[in-house]
Amino acid sequence: MDDTGLLDIAYEEALLGLAEGGIPIGAALFAADGTLLGRGHNRRVQSGDPSVHAETDAFRAAGRRRDYRSTIMVTTLSPCWYCSGLVRQFGIGAVLVGEAETFYGGHDWLAEHGVRVTVLNDRRCIDLMSKFIADQPALWFEDIGVSD
Amino acid sequence: MDDTGLLDIAYEEALLGLAEGGIPIGAALFAADGTLLGRGHNRRVQSGDPSVHAETDAFRAAGRRRDYRSTIMVTTLSPCWYCSGLVRQFGIGAVLVGEAETFYGGHDWLAEHGVRVTVLNDRRCIDLMSKFIADQPALWFEDIGVSD
Repeated sequence: MDDTGLLDIAYEEALLGLAEGGIPIGAALFAADGTLLGRGHNRRVQSGDPSVHAETDAFRAAGRRRDYRSTIMVTTLSPCWYCSGLVRQFGIGAVLVGEAETFYGGHDWLAEHGVRVTVLNDRRCIDLMSKFIADQPALWFEDIGVSD
Repeated sequence: MDDTGLLDIAYEEALLGLAEGGIPIGAALFAADGTLLGRGHNRRVQSGDPSVHAETDAFRAAGRRRDYRSTIMVTTLSPCWYCSGLVRQFGIGAVLVGEAETFYGGHDWLAEHGVRVTVLNDRRCIDLMSKFIADQPALWFEDIGVSD
């Protein structure tokens, strides 16, 4: 599967989250050969749980594992510090980012620490988040800890 | 409540985790006046969920909030990158660490980014983790993403 094919899964998750009334960010964790290990989306609204970002949901869905070096975390949006910390701590080898235009997280920091980072600048992802942020700014700022 | 009183709650959580057969790390999130907002412990073993570290469990238990600047995250062990990222992203104002002897995570990075960090070097916490790591090294390394 090429990068766009991998991103498609994360984007489907983002749309699922939106359909549930949630924050439309999706993610998926893949093995190096393209096998899907886990997929998920932000659940702040749906579960009332601020700890479930898209990446953590996909990571959880993949279950307990001993080694993440050959895995790829695919996410519709640049990973925040929380999710970047997840990638760094567990040694996830690669991150594929749908877009970093509406939010710029920690992916440069990950690249500095040896993670292979690709930013796709995907138009669907940009449009989805742009509309969501315009529609629900308070919810968006809550999700990234911006309180001003 | 003084620092040791705050740490007592996190330590109780670590002991709860140990009694459940889990990894003995506990945490609690407090308001500036010492009000407990949420408490929790690592649940990798109990829930088969690699995404629930002690700090994320306490953060989840505190529910959705708009502003974390005046809160204090108390943890029995130096926060890993995942949990340090949580603190940074959500702007948690202070971190109180039981010990950083058996594991050295991201608390210096947090201090560089304006978080008030205190390391207590608490003997109970050091002894608890030292014994756990000696007893179950494979489980411990799994929890911090060390695969070698």
